[in-house]
Amino acid sequence: MSGAYVHGYDPRENERLQDQAGTLVELLHSDTAYPAGSTILEAGCGVGAQTITLAQRSPDARFTSVDVSAESIAEARRRADAAGLTNVDFQRADIFALPFDPESFDHVFVCFVLEHLSRPVEALTILQRLLRPGGTITVIEGDHGSTYFHPDSDAARAAIQCQVTMQQQAGGNALIGRQVYPLMIEAGFDEVSVSPRMVYVDASRPHMVDGFTRKTFTAMIEGVREAAIAAQLIEPERFDAGVRDLHRTTEADGVFCYAFFKGVGCKRDAPGDHGL
Amino acid sequence: MSGAYVHGYDPRENERLQDQAGTLVELLHSDTAYPAGSTILEAGCGVGAQTITLAQRSPDARFTSVDVSAESIAEARRRADAAGLTNVDFQRADIFALPFDPESFDHVFVCFVLEHLSRPVEALTILQRLLRPGGTITVIEGDHGSTYFHPDSDAARAAIQCQVTMQQQAGGNALIGRQVYPLMIEAGFDEVSVSPRMVYVDASRPHMVDGFTRKTFTAMIEGVREAAIAAQLIEPERFDAGVRDLHRTTEADGVFCYAFFKGVGCKRDAPGDHGL
Repeated sequence: MSGAYVHGYDPRENERLQDQAGTLVELLHSDTAYPAGSTILEAGCGVGAQTITLAQRSPDARFTSVDVSAESIAEARRRADAAGLTNVDFQRADIFALPFDPESFDHVFVCFVLEHLSRPVEALTILQRLLRPGGTITVIEGDHGSTYFHPDSDAARAAIQCQVTMQQQAGGNALIGRQVYPLMIEAGFDEVSVSPRMVYVDASRPHMVDGFTRKTFTAMIEGVREAAIAAQLIEPERFDAGVRDLHRTTEADGVFCYAFFKGVGCKRDAPGDHGL
Repeated sequence: MSGAYVHGYDPRENERLQDQAGTLVELLHSDTAYPAGSTILEAGCGVGAQTITLAQRSPDARFTSVDVSAESIAEARRRADAAGLTNVDFQRADIFALPFDPESFDHVFVCFVLEHLSRPVEALTILQRLLRPGGTITVIEGDHGSTYFHPDSDAARAAIQCQVTMQQQAGGNALIGRQVYPLMIEAGFDEVSVSPRMVYVDASRPHMVDGFTRKTFTAMIEGVREAAIAAQLIEPERFDAGVRDLHRTTEADGVFCYAFFKGVGCKRDAPGDHGL
């Protein structure tokens, strides 16, 4: 992995990631369930925001959840224990140097990970090698270019662009959601199917106004304030006006839109077709 | 209605509107059906692109479809006759001067109309008066600001912006989709519920690549070429590069995204609450 993890590792950020996971569980994960006895590799589990949902929804499947950060793994383990989960093994590992045998998993799950990698296709290819033939991979990514809102605001768009630029400078891609299909195809997956998961928030959905617009998206943008200003990407006044305008979209006549993309693909039955 | 109808009235444009209606029928209209015996006002039916679908899906309801253009009404009538429809009355009328009694319709349907009006809330308020108490209104609008694609392209975004600017100069708003909820609330409708209808197109959906990306969206942008250049909004080379880049998104690794918004609201049972 190149560069720093743009979302950082502080407790408030962890809380944001939990808020996000809670608000979006139905939208992103309701159609993901694994059969009893199957083995799943979750690559890049972070603090376990998705792990809890996944493991609770497939209680008779066995999860191996890895992350490059030892701290995140410790936190994820703590949360899984608190949730009473017994079907998850946590392990610190780099996605580009995973300590597993080829074809040792039935399924792979990667959520909000490719956006942080400079070589996403290589990561997918490595993960494919770990899959048994006929096994599936599930990939979920957001796309900050899918953001629009009412009232519209140039300042808000400039503040969002800071996050996009910083993620790019760290080797990642905050606009990767729209590319999930071509990336999975390029990595050689079969039967690839991508569906958009659009988050639409207006005042009739107060839970989403608070859980998504305010505590997930706007909090994420607010989180890059100091770094964006230090990097001279934006003037402090302009950034703060942008954040104010994002909060403005949470008022009674405001609307906020964002989209995630979920792709599912299959490893071809004839193994080795698309190995590196 | 202020200004010219940005989409124009020529036959190729009519064909585009038909392609669009065909491709999007399920996405936009599958959840609209009216009970037997009910009366529906379709305000701004144009050449009947939606009328055919609506009337076929609710064969025992009675439609009154109006449009400000006599030519469009004639074409809509021809198409309805060709489709064998007997439950639609066509009539030329201006949405701001409709020749109907208050509370004379059970339901109102307005699709791709508010985007062309400088006073959309006034139009909604007028339509509300024609509804019986407890009757519903269905509003559908697109939003050009919801457009993003892979590969990304500044030129393509500049070409799209020409359409947005021209529609704005004609008194309309090509970014109105995100405002359907606040507009309906401002007009006084009750129980307003808006849902996004996202169009996601990748190479696994060849029907949508052709029917939406190519023949609906890109064709619409191509349609403003001469006028945008004449208005000096853009250089011809830049516009053509933008259109080429939109076509580029139809290749095997391309992706195209767009969103429509569908709102349904109800007229309060106590009439007159929100009349002008």
